[in-house]
Amino acid sequence: MANNRTSSASRDILPEPTLRRLPWYLAYVSLLKESGVEYVSSTQIAKEINVDASMIAKDLSFLNIKGKTRIGYEVASLERELQDFLCFKVEHNAVMIGVGSLGNSLIQDSGLVNYGLDIVAGFDIKPDKVGQQVCGVPIYDISELKERLPELKAEIGIIAVPIDHAQEVSDLLVDAGIKALWNFSPFRITAPEGIVIQNTSIYAHLAVMYNRLGLSKAMNREK
Amino acid sequence: MANNRTSSASRDILPEPTLRRLPWYLAYVSLLKESGVEYVSSTQIAKEINVDASMIAKDLSFLNIKGKTRIGYEVASLERELQDFLCFKVEHNAVMIGVGSLGNSLIQDSGLVNYGLDIVAGFDIKPDKVGQQVCGVPIYDISELKERLPELKAEIGIIAVPIDHAQEVSDLLVDAGIKALWNFSPFRITAPEGIVIQNTSIYAHLAVMYNRLGLSKAMNREK
Repeated sequence: MANNRTSSASRDILPEPTLRRLPWYLAYVSLLKESGVEYVSSTQIAKEINVDASMIAKDLSFLNIKGKTRIGYEVASLERELQDFLCFKVEHNAVMIGVGSLGNSLIQDSGLVNYGLDIVAGFDIKPDKVGQQVCGVPIYDISELKERLPELKAEIGIIAVPIDHAQEVSDLLVDAGIKALWNFSPFRITAPEGIVIQNTSIYAHLAVMYNRLGLSKAMNREK
Repeated sequence: MANNRTSSASRDILPEPTLRRLPWYLAYVSLLKESGVEYVSSTQIAKEINVDASMIAKDLSFLNIKGKTRIGYEVASLERELQDFLCFKVEHNAVMIGVGSLGNSLIQDSGLVNYGLDIVAGFDIKPDKVGQQVCGVPIYDISELKERLPELKAEIGIIAVPIDHAQEVSDLLVDAGIKALWNFSPFRITAPEGIVIQNTSIYAHLAVMYNRLGLSKAMNREK
């Protein structure tokens, strides 16, 4: 990313698994920096966070970050480059669609701001929510979405509605001019080409966890 | 994988990507059932949720669910089998470690109960939190974890602490007898073999979203 003429091309091909690992490296490197460590090798990162060292080196090479032989990566510059690349220090405005239990919780999670996400408004259909505020964030009627979006300058729509409204809400958001959909509902939404979709079904992770837990119990019984 | 006598074996090897897709199918099939639809084909599911039809058929065959030629899957039984398999109707007790912004939000997200997760207690180090309740869930001092865990009957530990405490808290949980770690911190924790780990870094999804948004902007500029 950092170099001359292939910057957009290298950005094109950055695989999603790599992108998802970069915040792990950033988290660990930030810890090292706080402890005053100056250099770190991919082997050391690998050991601490349980990711293959060669994968770490490869992931970082996508960003044109290269370690020095025998010294490794300079911690401070590695942190800065990861931070710049991940855009966690850039403010991204977002709107929350659905201010039920999960939507409410996400608006209240001040941690998101530290990762560059600023939820500037919520939208709902329930009369008892519309006109209220959650942590200072105004809640509007969903029918006002298209009209209010330009002033809100939001490119990201967060979807926290029941599954039977997820697709409908996605269509509304796209029609209103939203460029990225962050879907927390377990319904798998679809959108026109060019719209960024991230499905974060925390329930899918529960499914994996329950299954693996059941499996380890079954294995223990067999022992 | 899909065959007769190896049902526990087939559970062993059910791949994680398959497990993560099953809740999508369940969500869509539940919608169909509510609308009174009786049969659905993998092609139809594929079209609606944008997953390859052959992948859906393969995923479902892992569970020994097979559609009938020209009729497809029976909606009611498909919903039931997915629900049984995913264990969303079984209560799983969990403890929340770290009752800051995110931990607090997750305790308040009543949606988790619908997916079988019952957060029965929180643990924190801050004196102003210990002894309080969040939505009826008691918050204890982290030093009491090992002593309180048996009565709480929790097998799942949810980690929502700052990155510099994530590994320490994981070790405490494992030592206290927890079998599965659901890690919401961006720090990639490690645990002994046999302990189930799910890393749900919602910030990693933000990283992907920001990157893809930046990319589509760059492409538009080039046009």
